[in-house]
Amino acid sequence: MRRFLKLTVAGASRASARALRVAPRGCTSLTKAGQCQFAKSYATKVALTADSYPYVKRDPNYKQLEDSDIAHFTEILGDSKLVIQEDLDFYNEDYMHKYMGQSKLVLKPKTTQQVSEIIKYCNEKKLAIVPQGGNTGLVGGSVPVFDEIVLSLSSLNKIRSFDEVSGILKADAGLILENADNFLAEKGYIFPLDLGAKGSCHVGGTIATNAGGLRLLRYGSLHGSVLGLETVLVDGTIVDSLHSLRKDNTGYDMKQVFIGSEGTLGVITGFSILCPPRPKAKNVAFLGLESYEAVQKTFIEAKGQLGEILSAFEFMDNKSQELVKTYNKLDHPLEEPYPFYVLIESSGSNKDHDDEKLEQFLEDVMEKEIVSDGIVAQDETQLANLWSWRELIPEASQHKGGVYKYDVSLPLKDLYDLIPAVEEKLKAANLVGETDEFPVIASVGYGHIGDGNVHLNVAVRRYTKEIEKAIEPFVYEWVQQHHGSVSAEHGLGFQKKNYIGYTKSENEIKLIKQLKNLYDPNGILNPYKYI
Amino acid sequence: MRRFLKLTVAGASRASARALRVAPRGCTSLTKAGQCQFAKSYATKVALTADSYPYVKRDPNYKQLEDSDIAHFTEILGDSKLVIQEDLDFYNEDYMHKYMGQSKLVLKPKTTQQVSEIIKYCNEKKLAIVPQGGNTGLVGGSVPVFDEIVLSLSSLNKIRSFDEVSGILKADAGLILENADNFLAEKGYIFPLDLGAKGSCHVGGTIATNAGGLRLLRYGSLHGSVLGLETVLVDGTIVDSLHSLRKDNTGYDMKQVFIGSEGTLGVITGFSILCPPRPKAKNVAFLGLESYEAVQKTFIEAKGQLGEILSAFEFMDNKSQELVKTYNKLDHPLEEPYPFYVLIESSGSNKDHDDEKLEQFLEDVMEKEIVSDGIVAQDETQLANLWSWRELIPEASQHKGGVYKYDVSLPLKDLYDLIPAVEEKLKAANLVGETDEFPVIASVGYGHIGDGNVHLNVAVRRYTKEIEKAIEPFVYEWVQQHHGSVSAEHGLGFQKKNYIGYTKSENEIKLIKQLKNLYDPNGILNPYKYI
Repeated sequence: MRRFLKLTVAGASRASARALRVAPRGCTSLTKAGQCQFAKSYATKVALTADSYPYVKRDPNYKQLEDSDIAHFTEILGDSKLVIQEDLDFYNEDYMHKYMGQSKLVLKPKTTQQVSEIIKYCNEKKLAIVPQGGNTGLVGGSVPVFDEIVLSLSSLNKIRSFDEVSGILKADAGLILENADNFLAEKGYIFPLDLGAKGSCHVGGTIATNAGGLRLLRYGSLHGSVLGLETVLVDGTIVDSLHSLRKDNTGYDMKQVFIGSEGTLGVITGFSILCPPRPKAKNVAFLGLESYEAVQKTFIEAKGQLGEILSAFEFMDNKSQELVKTYNKLDHPLEEPYPFYVLIESSGSNKDHDDEKLEQFLEDVMEKEIVSDGIVAQDETQLANLWSWRELIPEASQHKGGVYKYDVSLPLKDLYDLIPAVEEKLKAANLVGETDEFPVIASVGYGHIGDGNVHLNVAVRRYTKEIEKAIEPFVYEWVQQHHGSVSAEHGLGFQKKNYIGYTKSENEIKLIKQLKNLYDPNGILNPYKYI
Repeated sequence: MRRFLKLTVAGASRASARALRVAPRGCTSLTKAGQCQFAKSYATKVALTADSYPYVKRDPNYKQLEDSDIAHFTEILGDSKLVIQEDLDFYNEDYMHKYMGQSKLVLKPKTTQQVSEIIKYCNEKKLAIVPQGGNTGLVGGSVPVFDEIVLSLSSLNKIRSFDEVSGILKADAGLILENADNFLAEKGYIFPLDLGAKGSCHVGGTIATNAGGLRLLRYGSLHGSVLGLETVLVDGTIVDSLHSLRKDNTGYDMKQVFIGSEGTLGVITGFSILCPPRPKAKNVAFLGLESYEAVQKTFIEAKGQLGEILSAFEFMDNKSQELVKTYNKLDHPLEEPYPFYVLIESSGSNKDHDDEKLEQFLEDVMEKEIVSDGIVAQDETQLANLWSWRELIPEASQHKGGVYKYDVSLPLKDLYDLIPAVEEKLKAANLVGETDEFPVIASVGYGHIGDGNVHLNVAVRRYTKEIEKAIEPFVYEWVQQHHGSVSAEHGLGFQKKNYIGYTKSENEIKLIKQLKNLYDPNGILNPYKYI
């Protein structure tokens, strides 16, 4: 066993490592010079969703858009620049380049009142709408399927107020997440949510999809941190629940059902959120372990010993690291390979204390032989480099052709078993191999152990019906048998609309449908999706 | 200015200080020997709610209980000991000794299936029900108003499972909070909620009322920590959403509307909750400050410097401490009086680090002259003693005759202004004085600064209509004008049913009523309350 070494030459520069987390929407990555780089799949024109999924039909109850409707919207918005009818690919195509809608109209209201007037009109006329934030969703939830009108929140993007004593931020839904976090950084606060798409995604969109992201382990879910919402109902009613109170026990907490409703109940136009103080110190350790059991033991020890400063606990299997090695052509942080790796991040208010806690913890888990090897970042660059071995997995998984991605929650003890189960299934179908005749390169697993959330990536040389048949509905059935969720953080959208039954019971689904019917009886809000 | 001294003789023993927090339901306090002690108001028989509030009438749509109904319930429960028809005062009378119902029947189902059969039958027959946990609520929400059947969850109290890796606890709703926390303590975990009534209240009851309590600043609200619920709907449907996943984005998060619904939407029979690791170290400091502005500044500094270890930030005004001094006849922790006091608690995983952080913080705020004086507990006894100066305020407020209590949320900057505003109103009505001819002794303020939650206690020698007229609806109007909530953590229940409009808008109330009608069209669940 090797003792912890100090990381010296970190390989990838900070810029390239950080790039992944702030790549603007439309780029799958940034070059080292910061230029937008498109993945292969983006270069090819994406097929129309209507063609790829011919069994999904346009609902004839929805009205077709007419010139008089456009004239009416232009009047509401009072500015023809907010009514967009050309070059709509950005709004029609999803972030994963899988879905392509056929909308002919994008509206960009600047006020809540305008949103209200638009929705009221659409409801009366039965014009279908897709509310759209930064359009960075991963399940095709934010793009039209047919000719739905895109209601973009991007012009409704102002900070309304910030209370420096309580840390409560109020803003418009269209505020970009990174702008919110930068604003807060100046005040000594941090946004309680962070994700790869932060440079493009809207805060309102993250709330509408109940995004999880990288800070959930530390700051909890949006159900806890969002204090109030301003929403517009389908009849145009503006519900101003933009409270800035941490406690309010007067009536049902109705805003909660809007968190994660993906624009199907109403449109979120504003929010108030509780922001924690920005941590002053950050540490990252990268560990090698012999088994998934050791990963779990390390998690228990980290929770106990690092306690309040533990801010991330990510795991990766060896195959995922092999993919990254091939992709970035750099030496792995650890000299020898291990079946599993763990990245631990701590964030706290006192650097010396955090260093000491981390050191003691690492000594302890090495002594107990739970952890076999490890390395600790000594500066920001090394910290970013260590993170990059986790963050580059999605990109590395798809660069040889494509990737089948599954984002599931599972009870911790079963979490990793999904990966070999899928690998076995693919091998049994003779689809996995090192040469080009086999479509599958590898099935890799990684994710947020702290949140019970594993990402399964099946890296492939090409997309084939055989692979799809081997893993679907197998993955969903496996998750169901192990009492997991088929969507941990990505939501349902268009992609998983038909799979909710693998996670939710019939009675639960009944309640969900009941609420949808209550709030949107004409079904004009984000149709063909969710439920 | 005096530097921080070490607390030496702590006055009240740990036992007496702790007693307050664990006094079993029915006692307003414990004697030093641990015996149950009843307040004056409890000795007097409480008037029937029907007599005290003659304008509230029994709804004739509800069926009167008949022998055949009781026979049916006995058959469902299969054990006549679970069907209680005598000595029902405990179930009819509320914790504050303000309300007294007239129920003739208490049912104590032992299984979720039995709960389902009971509710289904009641709904079909239009028999009104009050779901009841430990009956420690503060707004009369858990007792009948007329002859409603009491559905006690006290026999449904088993721990179902605990996952030592993830910290997820699953249990029946009737589990007593203290039992849950003791169980978790053995496993190195802590229940994310703590309150004075922990020895009697049920976890299910705390979820149904969205209780706040003493750990909210650190661990957040139940909307964030409750992962799943098992609920029984009015038609008997059992909705098993008892998920043990930290992340699940499949459909609307319907359990959220049950959190804080006070038994008006359905009955919570089970829960799963995420429990954090139990902190290993705890510190308490008690500070004296010259102004409310200094209290706010201290809060900002504490959040920044203590960061992740800050677990409580409670403030008290001088008058509240004067009342406690008169009541417990002990020397105050600080030699000289100050207009405001703050109690700061830290909880962390490393005692040395926490001590150092607290010391540095205290040196800093003293040097900046934000804090004028202070003291730090050196052991568990002193820690409990310092807490007792905060915890004894409710009891000290009412021991000279009675107390009018208001639990409100307000934006931090305005939080304390409510107290002098009320005092002025009472003085203008010539009701405040030091001698017996004046009914009011003092208006005192204290509470959870960290949560924006202030408790206003008007300590009185006797209850009079004049006082009531002077402060109601004045308090509610004041809270409304300052965008606060008329119920921060106590809920609505019977007491605040008519005041929701001071906090929620017409549109918000409409949505709440709409949901109530959807879930309970016959209105049999906890009638005459909430909305």
